[in-house]
Amino acid sequence: MKTYALVFQGTAYTSKSPKEVEVLENYLFCVNDDGMIEMVIAPGDPAYRATQNTHEVRRLAEGQYLLPGFIDLHVHAPQWAQAGLALDVPLYEWLHTHTFPLESKFSDLEFAADVYDDLVGTLLANGTTTALYFATVHKEASLLLAEICANKGQRGLVGKVVMDDPEQNPEYYRDADTKTALAETEQFIREVKQLAESVKQGVYPVVTPRFIPSCTDEALQGLGELAARYDVHIQSHCSESDWAHEYVQKRFGKHDAAALHDFGLLGQKSVMAHCNFLDDEDADLFARTGTAIGHCPLSNAYFANGVLPLARWMDKGVEIGLGTDISAGYTPSLFDNARQAVISSRMLEDGVDTALPADRRGVPESRITIDEAFYLATAGGGESLSLPIGRLAEGYAWDVQIIDLTAGGMKLPVFGGGDSKRELFQRIMYLCRPEHIREVWVQGEMVHSRSR
Amino acid sequence: MKTYALVFQGTAYTSKSPKEVEVLENYLFCVNDDGMIEMVIAPGDPAYRATQNTHEVRRLAEGQYLLPGFIDLHVHAPQWAQAGLALDVPLYEWLHTHTFPLESKFSDLEFAADVYDDLVGTLLANGTTTALYFATVHKEASLLLAEICANKGQRGLVGKVVMDDPEQNPEYYRDADTKTALAETEQFIREVKQLAESVKQGVYPVVTPRFIPSCTDEALQGLGELAARYDVHIQSHCSESDWAHEYVQKRFGKHDAAALHDFGLLGQKSVMAHCNFLDDEDADLFARTGTAIGHCPLSNAYFANGVLPLARWMDKGVEIGLGTDISAGYTPSLFDNARQAVISSRMLEDGVDTALPADRRGVPESRITIDEAFYLATAGGGESLSLPIGRLAEGYAWDVQIIDLTAGGMKLPVFGGGDSKRELFQRIMYLCRPEHIREVWVQGEMVHSRSR
Repeated sequence: MKTYALVFQGTAYTSKSPKEVEVLENYLFCVNDDGMIEMVIAPGDPAYRATQNTHEVRRLAEGQYLLPGFIDLHVHAPQWAQAGLALDVPLYEWLHTHTFPLESKFSDLEFAADVYDDLVGTLLANGTTTALYFATVHKEASLLLAEICANKGQRGLVGKVVMDDPEQNPEYYRDADTKTALAETEQFIREVKQLAESVKQGVYPVVTPRFIPSCTDEALQGLGELAARYDVHIQSHCSESDWAHEYVQKRFGKHDAAALHDFGLLGQKSVMAHCNFLDDEDADLFARTGTAIGHCPLSNAYFANGVLPLARWMDKGVEIGLGTDISAGYTPSLFDNARQAVISSRMLEDGVDTALPADRRGVPESRITIDEAFYLATAGGGESLSLPIGRLAEGYAWDVQIIDLTAGGMKLPVFGGGDSKRELFQRIMYLCRPEHIREVWVQGEMVHSRSR
Repeated sequence: MKTYALVFQGTAYTSKSPKEVEVLENYLFCVNDDGMIEMVIAPGDPAYRATQNTHEVRRLAEGQYLLPGFIDLHVHAPQWAQAGLALDVPLYEWLHTHTFPLESKFSDLEFAADVYDDLVGTLLANGTTTALYFATVHKEASLLLAEICANKGQRGLVGKVVMDDPEQNPEYYRDADTKTALAETEQFIREVKQLAESVKQGVYPVVTPRFIPSCTDEALQGLGELAARYDVHIQSHCSESDWAHEYVQKRFGKHDAAALHDFGLLGQKSVMAHCNFLDDEDADLFARTGTAIGHCPLSNAYFANGVLPLARWMDKGVEIGLGTDISAGYTPSLFDNARQAVISSRMLEDGVDTALPADRRGVPESRITIDEAFYLATAGGGESLSLPIGRLAEGYAWDVQIIDLTAGGMKLPVFGGGDSKRELFQRIMYLCRPEHIREVWVQGEMVHSRSR
């Protein structure tokens, strides 16, 4: 008889496919010493009783449910300090009056520690077990963010941001020069890889050109080479807004996707934020190279000038997950973003301008369901990162949120007879708030808990 | 020297105009026995010290701020039992498989008591001090909702729903006939008016034709006459979706606005939900008659086929407030709806379909700010209902939420030096969750509190 480090008994929701959520009612989840799910046992299985008899089983209470931890594919960690601020100002002012001055303060490691510590704790409390972070240009503060993830038990993928073009970036906040940017990135990769050796849940260095407009050709080329040499993840922004899309078209005579590909920046471990202005050819290139889209629906409402045609690219087989894009997105919650992903997709489908006739208002067949939004926040994020996370299934990490529908002052509105398990899933996705997230586990370790 | 029942000292936010939020830093708010704000005293004023010396002053703690209570202009109270459910199904199925069967269950007063009790408590906990409710066709259960508002201290405006057309409504859920619908509405008005005599914060009967498609001409005419005779509020749905808009056009050869006006259903005390398909002439009619729009941005993303051109109608002087539209809108929170009002307005401005050129994608100058969204949730709602609520100013009811930025496990992300008071306002509007709502007061009475 096999012995497990942890055995949980309860009802879980996990994506079977992008369109289907599976309910595992009263299953056993057996977790090994490495924090991986080794067995998932259905109630009828002979191993069920045997495992119960030989293990101390953690049985979920009435009203508690298991979800995979969320995977946030796009977080500007320093911008947590301005979450909720300045969303009414134009992009240029948002960047130059607020964002760049704030990011430049992360040369101060004490300030960085305050913000990053609070952010990582807040994301965990919101059920986010894995996050893909942009830090700042500062190598030391970026390393500090990786260390904080390591210590708090979050699976962090962290990038020291490269923005080396002196024409495009303010003097007070950019890489000293291209050579330094590349050397520091390489040093950062080595240091995070070394840190990772002692981190159970994993921390990962990420090659991070801010976006094409802020980098020289030489930096983009050099970063592509570094990513290949060290086999690390890559992140950037891609075709986010009219301005960004047109800038790249002018500079290279091609779309972001093709330009990034030429620099060696697309691939299985690449995640590109936004991508609202991809065309079919760009999307094919994403699908072919295994490049993923980090979809940030709340941020896009403020800064993207349009809605990602999510359903269309999902049908094409492009990997897609969700991102908060703190602080262009104000909320640390992927619940909020999953809801907005559905909402924005329906607004794309129906259109917005009621002065137009219905058949000229929107883009048919654009809507996604809440089940698909859940996929994006979980399994889709895992596939985007090419990591075994985001599903409650054998061979995946024990990264979970325990949702408590009776928690806090805000029990969910279930009356008379009660909901089916499918209905409860919808309630969870639409109505849960952080106070319903009772516990959060990463790689078999409890990293957050909240009393009733 | 005047004596007040209550004196609060603290920093408050209140709308000065639809576009401007005023910060009253460390003011005194003096509330009389009727629960009305009798004096608002600035720190420099000689009366400040005198009032402090002669009263037991409730001083807000560090990190606490006063907002006016929110005013929810559109709640289908029975649908609280299905909040978060069935948002992925088509409207017809949503109505006939879910909503009408659920509403029909409110003939059972015990079930009604469970749901309404939980809903009113939940809305208060979300900072909603006044709500305009659709109940169901059942007179008794509708009266019960008014009683529950009365007992829990919420200012409730409640309508027994009229849906009398046997061609348009299912046999199991409609008024017995037109005559009964009108007689029961009249009886309901009298009963709520009688109840109101002993209710400090007020409860109000509301004439409530569900929407034109569900009512006969005779019922609409009769309801208009009843509203005039008893001088009560009126609510309905107006030009919500393509289908509803076209139905009325076919039946009457005119828009909803004109048809409602002909039946005597527009006026100072009228609030019409949605109104997404008004044209300029309709909007002028609203402005001229003092009819208000109950804007429900989350619901509209699911069922309205377009976005209300909010900025345009605000400029025209149409009264507008916010509604959750539970359960076509999933959330009981007007914070969530205020955020979505901004988001939807920006999506209307920029458009959604990135395959179109920027200048053909959206509707310029449609965006509203978070300050305007706050106005809609507070003062705009008060003006819509023609009641002295929604502002922290002399002559207004003491309906407030005390926001605690340090509450729960989720303090707001303010670092290093701290935010200005204007910045804190943005944080509150974007990041507050129910756990930050420490206390709620209506008409000078505390109706909700939550420990740290």
